[in-house]
Amino acid sequence: MTATFGEKIKMTIFGESHGLAIGCVIDGLPPGTAIDLEAVKAEMQRRAPGKSKLATARQEKDAFIIQSGFFEGRTTGTPMCVLIPNGDQHSGDYSKLQNVMRPGHADYSGKIKYKGFNDYRGGGHFSGRLTAPLVFVGAVAKQMLAQRGIYVGAHIASIAEVQDKIFNPLGESKETLAELAQKGFPVLDDAAGVEMQQQILAAKQSCDSVGGVIECMAINVPAGVGEPFFDSLESRLAHALFSVPAVKGIEFGKGFALAQLSGSEANDQLYFDVGEVKAYTNNNGGITGGITNGMPVCFKAVLKPTPSIAKVQKTVDLAKCENTELVITGRHDPCVVQRAVPVIEAVAAWVILDMLLVGER
Amino acid sequence: MTATFGEKIKMTIFGESHGLAIGCVIDGLPPGTAIDLEAVKAEMQRRAPGKSKLATARQEKDAFIIQSGFFEGRTTGTPMCVLIPNGDQHSGDYSKLQNVMRPGHADYSGKIKYKGFNDYRGGGHFSGRLTAPLVFVGAVAKQMLAQRGIYVGAHIASIAEVQDKIFNPLGESKETLAELAQKGFPVLDDAAGVEMQQQILAAKQSCDSVGGVIECMAINVPAGVGEPFFDSLESRLAHALFSVPAVKGIEFGKGFALAQLSGSEANDQLYFDVGEVKAYTNNNGGITGGITNGMPVCFKAVLKPTPSIAKVQKTVDLAKCENTELVITGRHDPCVVQRAVPVIEAVAAWVILDMLLVGER
Amino acid sequence: MTATFGEKIKMTIFGESHGLAIGCVIDGLPPGTAIDLEAVKAEMQRRAPGKSKLATARQEKDAFIIQSGFFEGRTTGTPMCVLIPNGDQHSGDYSKLQNVMRPGHADYSGKIKYKGFNDYRGGGHFSGRLTAPLVFVGAVAKQMLAQRGIYVGAHIASIAEVQDKIFNPLGESKETLAELAQKGFPVLDDAAGVEMQQQILAAKQSCDSVGGVIECMAINVPAGVGEPFFDSLESRLAHALFSVPAVKGIEFGKGFALAQLSGSEANDQLYFDVGEVKAYTNNNGGITGGITNGMPVCFKAVLKPTPSIAKVQKTVDLAKCENTELVITGRHDPCVVQRAVPVIEAVAAWVILDMLLVGER
Amino acid sequence: MTATFGEKIKMTIFGESHGLAIGCVIDGLPPGTAIDLEAVKAEMQRRAPGKSKLATARQEKDAFIIQSGFFEGRTTGTPMCVLIPNGDQHSGDYSKLQNVMRPGHADYSGKIKYKGFNDYRGGGHFSGRLTAPLVFVGAVAKQMLAQRGIYVGAHIASIAEVQDKIFNPLGESKETLAELAQKGFPVLDDAAGVEMQQQILAAKQSCDSVGGVIECMAINVPAGVGEPFFDSLESRLAHALFSVPAVKGIEFGKGFALAQLSGSEANDQLYFDVGEVKAYTNNNGGITGGITNGMPVCFKAVLKPTPSIAKVQKTVDLAKCENTELVITGRHDPCVVQRAVPVIEAVAAWVILDMLLVGER
Repeated sequence: MTATFGEKIKMTIFGESHGLAIGCVIDGLPPGTAIDLEAVKAEMQRRAPGKSKLATARQEKDAFIIQSGFFEGRTTGTPMCVLIPNGDQHSGDYSKLQNVMRPGHADYSGKIKYKGFNDYRGGGHFSGRLTAPLVFVGAVAKQMLAQRGIYVGAHIASIAEVQDKIFNPLGESKETLAELAQKGFPVLDDAAGVEMQQQILAAKQSCDSVGGVIECMAINVPAGVGEPFFDSLESRLAHALFSVPAVKGIEFGKGFALAQLSGSEANDQLYFDVGEVKAYTNNNGGITGGITNGMPVCFKAVLKPTPSIAKVQKTVDLAKCENTELVITGRHDPCVVQRAVPVIEAVAAWVILDMLLVGER
Repeated sequence: MTATFGEKIKMTIFGESHGLAIGCVIDGLPPGTAIDLEAVKAEMQRRAPGKSKLATARQEKDAFIIQSGFFEGRTTGTPMCVLIPNGDQHSGDYSKLQNVMRPGHADYSGKIKYKGFNDYRGGGHFSGRLTAPLVFVGAVAKQMLAQRGIYVGAHIASIAEVQDKIFNPLGESKETLAELAQKGFPVLDDAAGVEMQQQILAAKQSCDSVGGVIECMAINVPAGVGEPFFDSLESRLAHALFSVPAVKGIEFGKGFALAQLSGSEANDQLYFDVGEVKAYTNNNGGITGGITNGMPVCFKAVLKPTPSIAKVQKTVDLAKCENTELVITGRHDPCVVQRAVPVIEAVAAWVILDMLLVGER
Repeated sequence: MTATFGEKIKMTIFGESHGLAIGCVIDGLPPGTAIDLEAVKAEMQRRAPGKSKLATARQEKDAFIIQSGFFEGRTTGTPMCVLIPNGDQHSGDYSKLQNVMRPGHADYSGKIKYKGFNDYRGGGHFSGRLTAPLVFVGAVAKQMLAQRGIYVGAHIASIAEVQDKIFNPLGESKETLAELAQKGFPVLDDAAGVEMQQQILAAKQSCDSVGGVIECMAINVPAGVGEPFFDSLESRLAHALFSVPAVKGIEFGKGFALAQLSGSEANDQLYFDVGEVKAYTNNNGGITGGITNGMPVCFKAVLKPTPSIAKVQKTVDLAKCENTELVITGRHDPCVVQRAVPVIEAVAAWVILDMLLVGER
Repeated sequence: MTATFGEKIKMTIFGESHGLAIGCVIDGLPPGTAIDLEAVKAEMQRRAPGKSKLATARQEKDAFIIQSGFFEGRTTGTPMCVLIPNGDQHSGDYSKLQNVMRPGHADYSGKIKYKGFNDYRGGGHFSGRLTAPLVFVGAVAKQMLAQRGIYVGAHIASIAEVQDKIFNPLGESKETLAELAQKGFPVLDDAAGVEMQQQILAAKQSCDSVGGVIECMAINVPAGVGEPFFDSLESRLAHALFSVPAVKGIEFGKGFALAQLSGSEANDQLYFDVGEVKAYTNNNGGITGGITNGMPVCFKAVLKPTPSIAKVQKTVDLAKCENTELVITGRHDPCVVQRAVPVIEAVAAWVILDMLLVGER
């Protein structure tokens, strides 16, 4: 625990990779909200595996079955349980991993925490598969945000050493964000994208993996969203984003590069633009004092390289209490960054919507 | 809101820079905990201003008065209210800032959120002064952690372009961490420290400011701390750390640099060290799957340059609805990084203790 | 919302009477807890309808399917989702009730709250059927409490004017509590039970219904459970118990009768009983200052008569905006008290276990 | 813990009877709320002791000092800390009570919970004095409710055997509620009030104490307030009310008497009254399905007789591990019911406002 996050749109997540089903209960969706289920399915498909040679061959439709809280095409206002049945599991692949800890995974930390009783198959509750319910809630949040004119999008900022262009911190158009969501491999600079995919395939061929950085932006978020002292929008976003497997760092606006700027360079100076307060720059990523300032909300998240690699690795066998070596077989992603793009967007959309609703009265 | 954070050690924070007092209520301290108040005062002094030409001349003793929950030298187990009276305020300095928004500050975002009713003097609730109660709770947490053999320390990893050495990711000694806490300007490499201070003074002389990065480490944290799915230790630490004014990025272990490593480089391979599971490297900063793995917990936080600078800046006057220019006078820190070191440590100590207690049963 | 309750054993509930399924997610069950599923099924059967002429003829097996968090017969420590599929629904019975509000039900208050979008069929989310997941969590809690020697039981204290004997406030044996759980109609005095059943059948024949009072006791709860100021055990129990449909009052120990006692009569005087502190009386129901004192925890809950009756009632038609009359047809319980006994026990067991775990460290 | 309650108007309470101060932090008051501090003081005076021979002679002005969150006569929207310094303490009275447990008090349960470290003087954190901050938050809530046309009032329904008239369940006027608030001894039937006071004085003379019942009503609460499943308005009210020392039972509407009604008697039948839905009766106390239905919210709370009595009582001495006898000296209330009336009102006002704000979006 805790499996629940969110203040007005509370999500309780559950499930293991090789159990009957994963899913979530979403509590707090305003009654009468029409949900375009086809659009939700499309978002789920962006994350789903088995679509290209860049990702795991595990075939999962990520089909969801709404159990409650949805009646005649609209939310009822009561809790919505969404079930995503598991399938195409090769549990046999994992039997030998019960006591041999995969480096970089939660195998050891999880085994200690859960005293050896956790479902270790396929990473169990730590599986990247648990991001599917996040995409569901994010897809619903995106629809609700769009009705307020707010749009969230993301792209791969880098894979290994290859960099994409970055977002214009003063704001991208909703069309640009929508185009990215259509792309199988979402980058601003498609040439860079080709190079990135080559890196991923190269890693795959050498039985290795690569990581990367995702940049995410939300446009038209009104000023005033965020709840100091402890529920700044940065705090809430970071809290939820660090729940996404593989995320190891978050920075807002210019982030770590701010350390090398002077105050006069870093400060976003202000002006009136036809009656509206705007900033000449957006080094703060649209958030000052933990509260949105009307500029686009912009952050980056780093995802470490997939820990499941087919190279020989040193590790421990906890049953035998001895050192051993491990080669991870099975079907794994040589890179999760491209599949994580809709996940990062989803989490951002959910948290922004949640804090927007918290602030409204 | 929300002014409260923590699960087992809940802290509710309050106060404005120029009000009667700031402070906090700490709920959940185990009954019978002896607190060394002199050690707490020493921690408060590390953060307190007015001690050198590197920081604001505002003189504040940060003296605290415990109102409740403390009886005959020990915690009672009931809520502890700590009051830190304000003093040496030059409220007159701020009168003109009611409608002229300081760039880089929460002035504008806060004014929108609080509909113009927030106490704008000295940044009000957004003042860096609110970090004093954080240091209090952290000082208590450090004492409780030390009894379990756990120690938390931090140093300035960089100011502007100047870099300190970094912590050995496999662990520093508690003596090294203690020595850092004794230093007025906590760095591992004192030569780099001298250079950093020159940068700060240079910024001060040019009416500007600088930012930097703080590296923090907790040693001897047992494996198993952290509460997936949504309360990973990374999530909890990031949530609390992003509440600290000026923090704009957090990364665990190698953080953003992980994007450029392959899986085989990034994975921390494991071995038995006299019956204990250890890793050859600690690129994950002691946390895998959101749960500690027994290696030192290690993260970096970036703090942006102080937004209060005495240079001319473009901004808006919300009363007159027009563009204007602003030169911030008054007593300000040309750099807050050195004063933030005990704050980052405090937040880390508090959150680690809190999650440790959550996981125990 | 909020669909979630509990601190260490958090339950998130979902579902509507005529949807696909109802159920819950239980977060925080300690890893490695063996659960006797047959005993859980037996508890579910105590609540299930369709077993006698005293209750609704709706046939529901209340069969549950555990989706997650349970592996090789034990809890994993990760969230357990329990699905209870719906079946034997006569949705047609309810179509005319979309706009004609049933008196005594949540129809009108719910319609206002959910702006007309709630699933009105069979009471939707307000259905007594939602108590099935409560019984599930309670059945698990009872098993965990029994391992600590703590037992929870309840009986029907009254139906209409007919009174059962009351529990000995100084404690019943676990055998007595177990016997009650075996009874189809749980009373201490079976003659009174026969009379009660006659009252229920008489009400049924006159197209009416009856209510009653349930008395519940937990024995061997150690002293020290409860979290003042706001999370007294009384507060937590009452909070959860008032979520049970039809409950309209809760009293601890002598409850409302305390108003007519003097302090010298009401106070539970203390003595040492072979080294253990005990009270001569238990007018406080085992709780003083919101914290257990080692005496049996004892409370009563009143359940109003079933509002679904086949008599003509005056009400409103919200579609036509006019007054109307209503005769509720369909299969309904003339009395829910006997089926509510395991529900009240379940809620008590869950809350006591939860607060016990909260207090442990 | 937990010292915090409330969703939108969160209150964190602290303090012990004989410490420096008691008080609270109120988080979530909407920015710009003007507070009539004189009206707040008047409410505090209703609860304050030392005013008549019916209550303790301890003189406490219950003067409060707002430390934060209040600027130029209005709330800022940031946390408001309210300090109520203690005074006129006779701590010497309590020294001998460290190990001799007062029957009916939290002495024993608290000592176990807090492992002997709690401040035992004057009941410490369990003192009735802790209700002063509740009255503060309630006084603010009442002002905010009044701006929405909602009024909360209460009266003494009974003391010992003496009964007052009861409220008209279909609603009292705001004038009646205001008049009650003006009375030193708030009853509807002043003749009954005189008799009640005689009972109290008689109890005082015989070194004993009496309890009673308080009836509370909130008028003009709109339909739709309450958050099923677990945050029904009944659940929230009961949760907070059971935090008030001495409260041992809560019932809504006809409460326990509903057990003796048939469904056709208990159901509140509905009709249109000039376009508005009303009920002919209000046996449900304005709440059905946990949600307000537009009828007055009405409940009763029983308060046990003051446990501090000057009669010889049997108890235990935990230091000597032996049975002993105790005569409680010092200044105590022979009855707390009349002083609890503004407390019950305050808690009701706070919770109703809180849930009203939760439901708004």
